[in-house]
Amino acid sequence: MFESAEIGHKLAKSAYREAVPTLRAALLAAQVDLFEKHKTPVVVLISGQDGAGKGETINTLYEWMDPRFISTLAFSQPSDEERERPPMWRYWRSLPPKGRVGIFAGSWYSEPIRERIYGEISVKELDARAEQINRFEEMLVNEGALVLKFWFHLTKDGQRQRLKALSSDPRTAWRVTQWNWDRLKTYDQLQDVAGHLLRITNTAAAPWVVVEGACDRYRSMTVGQVLLKALQNKLAEAAPPRALMPPMVRVDLDGRNVLSELDLTLALADKPYKDQLAKWQGRLSELVRDARFQGRSLVCAFEGADAAGKGGAIRRIAGALDARQYQVTPVAAPTDEEKDQPHLWRFWRHLPRHGHVAMFDRTWYGRVLVERVEGFCTEADWLRAYSEINDFEHEMIEAGVVVVKFWLQISQAEQLKRFKEREKIEFKRFKITQEDWRNREKWHDYQQAICDMVERTSTGESPWTLVEANDKNYARVKILRTLCQRLEAALAQAPEVSLRLAKKPKK
Amino acid sequence: MFESAEIGHKLAKSAYREAVPTLRAALLAAQVDLFEKHKTPVVVLISGQDGAGKGETINTLYEWMDPRFISTLAFSQPSDEERERPPMWRYWRSLPPKGRVGIFAGSWYSEPIRERIYGEISVKELDARAEQINRFEEMLVNEGALVLKFWFHLTKDGQRQRLKALSSDPRTAWRVTQWNWDRLKTYDQLQDVAGHLLRITNTAAAPWVVVEGACDRYRSMTVGQVLLKALQNKLAEAAPPRALMPPMVRVDLDGRNVLSELDLTLALADKPYKDQLAKWQGRLSELVRDARFQGRSLVCAFEGADAAGKGGAIRRIAGALDARQYQVTPVAAPTDEEKDQPHLWRFWRHLPRHGHVAMFDRTWYGRVLVERVEGFCTEADWLRAYSEINDFEHEMIEAGVVVVKFWLQISQAEQLKRFKEREKIEFKRFKITQEDWRNREKWHDYQQAICDMVERTSTGESPWTLVEANDKNYARVKILRTLCQRLEAALAQAPEVSLRLAKKPKK
Repeated sequence: MFESAEIGHKLAKSAYREAVPTLRAALLAAQVDLFEKHKTPVVVLISGQDGAGKGETINTLYEWMDPRFISTLAFSQPSDEERERPPMWRYWRSLPPKGRVGIFAGSWYSEPIRERIYGEISVKELDARAEQINRFEEMLVNEGALVLKFWFHLTKDGQRQRLKALSSDPRTAWRVTQWNWDRLKTYDQLQDVAGHLLRITNTAAAPWVVVEGACDRYRSMTVGQVLLKALQNKLAEAAPPRALMPPMVRVDLDGRNVLSELDLTLALADKPYKDQLAKWQGRLSELVRDARFQGRSLVCAFEGADAAGKGGAIRRIAGALDARQYQVTPVAAPTDEEKDQPHLWRFWRHLPRHGHVAMFDRTWYGRVLVERVEGFCTEADWLRAYSEINDFEHEMIEAGVVVVKFWLQISQAEQLKRFKEREKIEFKRFKITQEDWRNREKWHDYQQAICDMVERTSTGESPWTLVEANDKNYARVKILRTLCQRLEAALAQAPEVSLRLAKKPKK
Repeated sequence: MFESAEIGHKLAKSAYREAVPTLRAALLAAQVDLFEKHKTPVVVLISGQDGAGKGETINTLYEWMDPRFISTLAFSQPSDEERERPPMWRYWRSLPPKGRVGIFAGSWYSEPIRERIYGEISVKELDARAEQINRFEEMLVNEGALVLKFWFHLTKDGQRQRLKALSSDPRTAWRVTQWNWDRLKTYDQLQDVAGHLLRITNTAAAPWVVVEGACDRYRSMTVGQVLLKALQNKLAEAAPPRALMPPMVRVDLDGRNVLSELDLTLALADKPYKDQLAKWQGRLSELVRDARFQGRSLVCAFEGADAAGKGGAIRRIAGALDARQYQVTPVAAPTDEEKDQPHLWRFWRHLPRHGHVAMFDRTWYGRVLVERVEGFCTEADWLRAYSEINDFEHEMIEAGVVVVKFWLQISQAEQLKRFKEREKIEFKRFKITQEDWRNREKWHDYQQAICDMVERTSTGESPWTLVEANDKNYARVKILRTLCQRLEAALAQAPEVSLRLAKKPKK
């Protein structure tokens, strides 16, 4: 892995001086194209050993490029707002929008490496993290990003020399602390762990570039040239690359599916409804006040046809909660800041803090429902979305978030009845739009999309609850009861990651 | 202040039941209009005594309205990300966008009241805060928001009875803690402090509505009716109200002004430039590593005509910093999320954390420069912007942020020369657009706007530094030197607010 970076690469001052103006001009030109035309987000990871020149090279990139369209993201100890969300939340919120370059000084690799070196996680756990990282980076690339990962390498002796040189120069001595010297002691462990991690995250979508760190000029010029060529390749692409995927194949022999099997005649009379509602609302209000919930959070996802009763169900849950404890996020068209990011970004930003509840009225499943049916995204996009969504939910669950998903199913006849009722009632009239009537025409396409969604995203850790919703009483009680049961079961288990995150990490 | 809320107001169950459906329908209709047509942000403050029914009324509002377009913002202890910014930052980041209702359970009033009750601030300091609050709310209203402030009042005996009733009911007992009982002991102080604060913040733009809290139905119905009428009034407005302001009057007897007095022949040869640059860059890099800077932050604002050298100056400052420590924010057209907020919102969101530097390439002065000259906002808007900007900078400075503002002045001839040069140099070509050439035609309008800006916003605590920028060497050194001197002076003084914020507040 690191052999090619122990050769003793050097670049002479004269060669460097000669090459810089051309490189700089080309980088600037590429950056302008990127920003004005191609609208690609560029994610650059600068990682490697202490003293290998990460800071210097980042500063050099700023000299060469237009600093107005670069951000450097540094990650030290997570803030309390970050600690109360899944570990990847802090990286999601830092992703560069389209057309910008985000340099990550420290990244999603830092924590797994540190934790493995200190023996806090096993090799198997490290591999699981690597797998998550691969999927995350693949998602970024599929969403149109250019991902460049640099690892600056030094030999052990080289590292000692760099640190000595830095500490003997009064202008740089401040940068070398005891902490850096301590890194020398863990040099071999870092080599082992990083070597292993780099190998399994060296994917076609986002390969590593290992760079010898000893010579400033060689290192910076290498990074500059790689960055330039990658930008130029990206700019030359006619269209963003799409992973090749086989079309979805489906055989239906008997016309039965998870939706057709639902008994939509299930109903609950008003009297038992009132009792049940009060019972489960009471239970829910106890559960969210439970001490164990204060280190957890709850995310409720509601999907369903128009007029299926999502809003009414959300209100009944809200009725059991304190308004200061929850947020309802209605999902409509993305804002332009959201359009400049991967499709899941606009959901990540609304994840609740500990002790809080987020309810989504329509969700991250839009891509495999409305976007698929209406053709708002390509087939490859919605095909890969299933696993991206599973990953998203897995990251939440791993961090102690309780995720509960409801599909509210009504019959076509019931929907029509509700549409007509709504038009009569003054204060509900606004809810019906032309689009609602249009969506009805695609009823069967939607049913197909829902079945595929359930098949591919109803996982053991995050199952879909299909709700027979022709009767509102029945549906609301089933939703509240399910929510209580899921929350109760989750609180009985301590999530591993959440506990690990709750402690401030050692330095 | 509170007499009208000690009358023993009650609303009978029957009257309440009769009134709710009409109110609810009207509120929903108003909410739809608000969201779809009028695009007004609505800020509702729910404040008052403990046990006076704040939570209950908020929950009732959720039942009556569409919860998808309401957010409730609760503020307990500030997070560490919030503690490292000016106190108002957490409220700015929570402001509802256009068309939405933001209910503030706890607000910018909570801290001043608490601090005064515990004797942490004097009456004079409280008055100064009230004045800031008035200006903030006036700005919100001028930016088109509807601001409604409710204070729920109970007599001392009434509060005791409410707390008793709450704690004897098993469904609500959990809500009454020792902390609430302790509030009874400070009842009189709260009355005094709140009475005083409400009186001086009872402005025409954002008046208080004091509501008797004892009867749930009376309290919620009052809030609902006030909210409805205020929404309907707002929706009936043809255009957002504009504060009446006299047009700017200006007499120029001799054609001299702060810009014409600048000596644009000032220059620095390359040799002394190199020495000076190195000297001040070294000094700057020491200052930002100074232990005292770790509890402070630095905001640099750059304004100047096109090609005045803002970017080059920013690069020279960046050259002295670690890329992980600063962000450059180029200010272009606002995104749609930014357009849905007051004009200063997009700058508030980029305020740096402690120990960090934010450089703005063009700034919050856009409103009194380009927006004024190009007619992108009304005269009333840019006229009031001067004091809004002064308030913004004052809040930063009070919280320990070091604010340094540069105007880079070049002559028209120098600008033309630079435009032509740029067109020749490959990697700078992108910087010149048609707009740049157009802006040149309005040179004199801009000069006038700049003079007005300096006159009205160069304050003792936040002066403008006018930079003779025809010679880049001279300009860069002057900027770096000024920055170092301002930073040095600021670090010698401990900011009061910043220190107060640094401690976690007592509960």
